[in-house]
Amino acid sequence: MPTDLDVRTARDLARPDVVTLEDVLAGDPTTYRVLTGDRPTGALHVGHLFGTLATRVALQRHGVETIVVLADYQVITDRDDPGDLPGAVREVVLDYLAAGLDPDATTIFTHSAVPAVHQLMLPFLSLVPVAELDRNPTVKAEQAASGRALSGLLLTYPVHQAADVLSVHGTLVPVGRDQLPHLELTRTVARRFNRRYGHVFDEPSALLSDAPLVLGTDGAKMSKSRGNAIELRADADATAAALRAARTDAERTITYEPERRPEVANLLLLGALASGRTPQDLAEEVGDGGAGALKRYVTDALVAHLAPLRARRAQLARDRHVVTEVLARGAERATAIADATLATVRVAMRQTA
Amino acid sequence: MPTDLDVRTARDLARPDVVTLEDVLAGDPTTYRVLTGDRPTGALHVGHLFGTLATRVALQRHGVETIVVLADYQVITDRDDPGDLPGAVREVVLDYLAAGLDPDATTIFTHSAVPAVHQLMLPFLSLVPVAELDRNPTVKAEQAASGRALSGLLLTYPVHQAADVLSVHGTLVPVGRDQLPHLELTRTVARRFNRRYGHVFDEPSALLSDAPLVLGTDGAKMSKSRGNAIELRADADATAAALRAARTDAERTITYEPERRPEVANLLLLGALASGRTPQDLAEEVGDGGAGALKRYVTDALVAHLAPLRARRAQLARDRHVVTEVLARGAERATAIADATLATVRVAMRQTA
Repeated sequence: MPTDLDVRTARDLARPDVVTLEDVLAGDPTTYRVLTGDRPTGALHVGHLFGTLATRVALQRHGVETIVVLADYQVITDRDDPGDLPGAVREVVLDYLAAGLDPDATTIFTHSAVPAVHQLMLPFLSLVPVAELDRNPTVKAEQAASGRALSGLLLTYPVHQAADVLSVHGTLVPVGRDQLPHLELTRTVARRFNRRYGHVFDEPSALLSDAPLVLGTDGAKMSKSRGNAIELRADADATAAALRAARTDAERTITYEPERRPEVANLLLLGALASGRTPQDLAEEVGDGGAGALKRYVTDALVAHLAPLRARRAQLARDRHVVTEVLARGAERATAIADATLATVRVAMRQTA
Repeated sequence: MPTDLDVRTARDLARPDVVTLEDVLAGDPTTYRVLTGDRPTGALHVGHLFGTLATRVALQRHGVETIVVLADYQVITDRDDPGDLPGAVREVVLDYLAAGLDPDATTIFTHSAVPAVHQLMLPFLSLVPVAELDRNPTVKAEQAASGRALSGLLLTYPVHQAADVLSVHGTLVPVGRDQLPHLELTRTVARRFNRRYGHVFDEPSALLSDAPLVLGTDGAKMSKSRGNAIELRADADATAAALRAARTDAERTITYEPERRPEVANLLLLGALASGRTPQDLAEEVGDGGAGALKRYVTDALVAHLAPLRARRAQLARDRHVVTEVLARGAERATAIADATLATVRVAMRQTA
């Protein structure tokens, strides 16, 4: 239901809906503030490393301010029991640090530590009709996947996401191609708020990832719960075992054909990413060596590539305070930003005398 | 949809669902903490004075800790434009103080000044299925009255109310008889949270008002927007004018028959409340004097009764800082309580290491 609140001004239109990492790395890093994050449901895996983590490290290296939220409330959108939440948060932060996120440059915090973010839910919920939330494709998909009654938390999750992004004035939000609609509600909320109360929020752009998608060892989406993941924290033996058990196909000669031979193509991709080559090049080298030779190559390349990360991670894990300190600093910085945003919002809404 | 989370333990059952003001005033004041409030939509009227304000002053006098929230986000549940919000908040606080609420004993704060309250929306929304919110009679009625599409804010308003009450560990919530179901969701949320994460919240009791309901000068519900209200801040002339224009009926002799003669009965009630008599007694005295004599009596009694309140109010209104200071102190105290509650909740939910 578009209303007059949805009309976009020249100012809104100045920022593109979608940009690529290439665009960002070619431009002025101070133009952007990135808001991204993860649900802390367990340790990260090599799919994260070559995907979202690689993007974050590249942004950090370019000097783009990046804020990473560990969405501890979103863990219970689709389950009752959050499990060992402190443990999961700790593993994720160790993975971040080991992968190269620098807490001096990148803000890392847990959602529940920053109240001002959540307060923005109130004005934002007033700008979104329930009918619009009911139609949200992500909410529908996640509810179907959960097999449970739709909770108030899941229904309002896109509004909460808008609060995340806008509370820190995030202007760039990394998403996969299938997730482009996710960000649309955030842009809509910003626009409606600005129309009603005066300009407070810039509409964020989606940062469309061009990172190749690494699948699990069975050819399906890599996920700890499917048992097809290679965790960053695993050791060389566990990595080798997981790759030995990886699914391939009945053809002897190794070729890179992602559509027709997804499992083999995924192993080629992993080996290529770990060794800085192309999958095609690697396929040519392995050739008639078959799946066994391919797996040996990928194992060696991945173990070698991960070795420094894993050594760094093991060292960090011995320090009992490092994660606590990173999160405390992150919460402090996120609180300062979100408190300032909330103060601006309260003035715009005339909630202060 | 009752689940195992809805089972009540002996501890839950120890606190009654409903108590009366008489019960409370006969008991130990330290047993309770009252949470109550108003939407700041404009100055208060004599209906408030003889209703909710009288209850609050009685509780304060008995030594019951009382917390009053000015629900500035709830103003936009049913309208786009909150109007002059700082002005409305100021008028309401002046009315509170003039009516006898003592900021040394009673905490008065605006919703938007206390972020920790709103953060509780997140865990609470996870405990309430959308289907349960859809069925809420208050939400349905308010949406119908607003004539607008149901917003996310209105749908989730009962959960926000639960956050208000439980964030300050309110154990007593004043409601009218028709509003008893309002509090049920708060009790449900407390119970489900306790079952899932361990005991954190006592289920609050409803404080059922036995105050007589004062109607407007046209016999309908007293409300500023209907133009039938006598505001506390009005002067004697405006009060007299409003009562001269009050609706009565064609019968000469004044009798107290609330069902058959609601307009006359309401004037008798007003006169009785203002003079400390019974409406029956007053009807007998006026008798054949008719509506004119009745109105003169009510005017004199009400103007005399309100004179000290109005003098106090005028004096307070001359001080430009009194309202700001009251709200700052209230927000500080409410923040201290709600922050402590939130810290307990985060530990119970294992959101801190």
